[in-house]
Amino acid sequence: MSVLKKNSARQRDQERARLIWLLTTDKAVTSTLLGKLTLAEQYDVGTLADDIAEVGALVAHLPPPDLADTLEALPSEERHALWRLVQDHERGQVLLEASENVWDDLIDEMSDRDILDALQTLDIDEQIYLVQHLPRNLTGRLLASLPADERARVRQVMHYEKNSVGAIMEFGVITVRPDVTLGTVQRYLRRLGKMPDNTDKLFVTSRDKTLLGELELKTILLNSTQRRVSEVMENEPMVFSPEDDAEKAARTFERDDLVSAAVVDSVGKLMGRLTVDEIVDVVYEETDNDLRALGGISAEDDVHASVGKAVKTRWAWLAINLCTAFIASRVIDGFEHTISQLVALASLMPIVAGIGGNTGNQTITMIVRALALENIQPGNFAFLIFREMGVALINGLVWGGIMGGITWWLYDDMALGGVMMLAMVLNLLVASMMGVIIPLTMTKLGRDPAVGSSVMITAITDTGGFFIFLGLATLFLL
Amino acid sequence: MSVLKKNSARQRDQERARLIWLLTTDKAVTSTLLGKLTLAEQYDVGTLADDIAEVGALVAHLPPPDLADTLEALPSEERHALWRLVQDHERGQVLLEASENVWDDLIDEMSDRDILDALQTLDIDEQIYLVQHLPRNLTGRLLASLPADERARVRQVMHYEKNSVGAIMEFGVITVRPDVTLGTVQRYLRRLGKMPDNTDKLFVTSRDKTLLGELELKTILLNSTQRRVSEVMENEPMVFSPEDDAEKAARTFERDDLVSAAVVDSVGKLMGRLTVDEIVDVVYEETDNDLRALGGISAEDDVHASVGKAVKTRWAWLAINLCTAFIASRVIDGFEHTISQLVALASLMPIVAGIGGNTGNQTITMIVRALALENIQPGNFAFLIFREMGVALINGLVWGGIMGGITWWLYDDMALGGVMMLAMVLNLLVASMMGVIIPLTMTKLGRDPAVGSSVMITAITDTGGFFIFLGLATLFLL
Repeated sequence: MSVLKKNSARQRDQERARLIWLLTTDKAVTSTLLGKLTLAEQYDVGTLADDIAEVGALVAHLPPPDLADTLEALPSEERHALWRLVQDHERGQVLLEASENVWDDLIDEMSDRDILDALQTLDIDEQIYLVQHLPRNLTGRLLASLPADERARVRQVMHYEKNSVGAIMEFGVITVRPDVTLGTVQRYLRRLGKMPDNTDKLFVTSRDKTLLGELELKTILLNSTQRRVSEVMENEPMVFSPEDDAEKAARTFERDDLVSAAVVDSVGKLMGRLTVDEIVDVVYEETDNDLRALGGISAEDDVHASVGKAVKTRWAWLAINLCTAFIASRVIDGFEHTISQLVALASLMPIVAGIGGNTGNQTITMIVRALALENIQPGNFAFLIFREMGVALINGLVWGGIMGGITWWLYDDMALGGVMMLAMVLNLLVASMMGVIIPLTMTKLGRDPAVGSSVMITAITDTGGFFIFLGLATLFLL
Repeated sequence: MSVLKKNSARQRDQERARLIWLLTTDKAVTSTLLGKLTLAEQYDVGTLADDIAEVGALVAHLPPPDLADTLEALPSEERHALWRLVQDHERGQVLLEASENVWDDLIDEMSDRDILDALQTLDIDEQIYLVQHLPRNLTGRLLASLPADERARVRQVMHYEKNSVGAIMEFGVITVRPDVTLGTVQRYLRRLGKMPDNTDKLFVTSRDKTLLGELELKTILLNSTQRRVSEVMENEPMVFSPEDDAEKAARTFERDDLVSAAVVDSVGKLMGRLTVDEIVDVVYEETDNDLRALGGISAEDDVHASVGKAVKTRWAWLAINLCTAFIASRVIDGFEHTISQLVALASLMPIVAGIGGNTGNQTITMIVRALALENIQPGNFAFLIFREMGVALINGLVWGGIMGGITWWLYDDMALGGVMMLAMVLNLLVASMMGVIIPLTMTKLGRDPAVGSSVMITAITDTGGFFIFLGLATLFLL
């Protein structure tokens, strides 16, 4: 069983880790590969030569998706070194599998011609995807290389938005007519000699390309060869339009356990198909985007981006945050007189603000998630706000009560304790209400509820917390 | 083409939305379905009867996965009303597709017997999954209902951890021998008459169940019926062990575009298979967990949980947050004398703390994400810390400089501006360093880096920010 063992998932994981280890632990390996160092300059030539030979063997053995993942896990210099070892005929596939973050590094030493050559090994839909999104614009050059009829079709596909079904669909489909027998289908398939990846079904179309049904491979195998396609085909298949949202399509794939599905135009003609491998990518990307958006980092930022790039991608969030913090600071400044009378307020106010920010962010995370899962419907808005405010009221009374008690005991001032409690209750109510309203409003306005929600809620709970607490103190304590 | 149109993804989305709308907009619909109201008590019987008929028609038309999603999108009472309409033979499937959050509501009106009956329609692996994780413990009763030999196998499977491949694998596999012809395989399949869902390949095993290779359905169709299985099978298939981590398996499925894969034991015997539909669920769940963890909400909390449940699931985070805020407050309290001398400090200190928290959370989000994508390797630790601190230093100098300038201008106090700038630089450095160290340390300790990281970093940047700013002010300004 040693053959099988070799290809276990764990083994491949180890090979990738080993490759990264070889490239990152001894700087000389990368330097030599990049031609900055010759073997003769090395003190320990034997080990270095062994390491480089092993790197070469691993690169030759690992398939493109693993190479892509390895490239992503490497710092910029090592990434260049590894990319040089990737063979020309695999480069297109590796580019396709690698995430956008690393494209910059990979293509910066390649000429336009090199890139287009690398793309030759890919399907036309994959080529289109890459030329449209690579940092260098090669769309024109790709179009010029295509025959005229193909060009028209490609131009049409390029119109679909990035997150639509049209942008991720494949053109490679096998179609059959409804009136032939399964035996004929089998002979036809054998003559074709191959099928596109992730083909679990053929599409049954009329002469004018109208989709009539689907024929699963399984159905062909389970039924007698005498039967006609029209008798055994699924005639209510799940179909998508190219304008459909890719993330929604992913939910449908998950819901219906699909492996592939037809994409049809507005009059029901077959345009292409969606496959589960693209869908899995969409799911990873979608949730990754939500995580990044809630954490305030942009899609271009990654752990291996250079310092300069990271500064550039993050400065906007910092600037916004600084503005909101500055506004909160001005609110406090307005109560300078109150604070100078009672310095204890200065040390207590961050508690009120902090607890509000925490609750607001909890609420927002839950709402963003529920929106993504389509668990929120128009009928629920009022219910949601009341529920969150109910939770906030209880938490405010309990924790505000405890904190009020502690404040009373610490400063021996019952009125101060009362103000503390009241401020916490009020700020939690504000936080929970805005935590529902902000993401839902952003969705209504057609914006991504994850982007910026967290910054906004923190701004509100900080400013609001300081205002409520210091305002109440001014009213009741001076 | 009207038949096809009916089953477009969009149409199903609309049907689900319609069902939710019917149940949530008119309270009378739900009340009537729950038997709390009779038709005779209604002022507008005609409309109500129509609505209820439409609800019934939609429930009958929508397949179990859509019903599960609809149930998740409803508040508790409407959820009960809808669940009553779900037919007995579909209940098992709906339960399986619904998320854990709603199980409570669904089974609370069912007896143990009802539940076990509902499970009868499911495969044994699905039954095991449900009885193990349903809020009511039915494992014993399920085991008792099984024949002795099955029971032994089930007991063994139950040992696998929740996030392992063993817990999500399926037993339903079709195996063939290597020495038969493809024609024989086809006859065998036709005799079987059906295949498990998501079957894209058969498994080739020896008489003692040792996995020898895989035979794709596609291969059967593309090759002559005279050829032998052993000649055309894939003999280096990707295999998993039941102990493998499910999230890692999901990465491998994504990487290799798999639809199904064999699960083998330590000596290479076939135990079952993993399918892409389970993998898509794992991906959604994984990223959902990360989002929840970073946002500080637990897996049991959802938008339709009752107020009581929401209070219960969130109190721990609030308590922790309150403790850390209290510690930060005590730090400020230690500088009471300083603040009373210079009240401006009170309004400026939240800026220093806030900007640190923001940067720390950006870093943590990025690291958590990179850990999930396996983009961080041991060789990168030092690089990551230096890079993040480099970014922090630049941002600190730029934004600290701007803020220092504004402070100087606002308060006409150059020393105060200098303290502001220095404090911001230092707190950003602390934030970025801890933003790398916290999640990586938690990973080293075998804990989920997403859980608690955000709270910890905020605690550190708050306390640290106040201490650094007020400490510097005490040193230089008094």
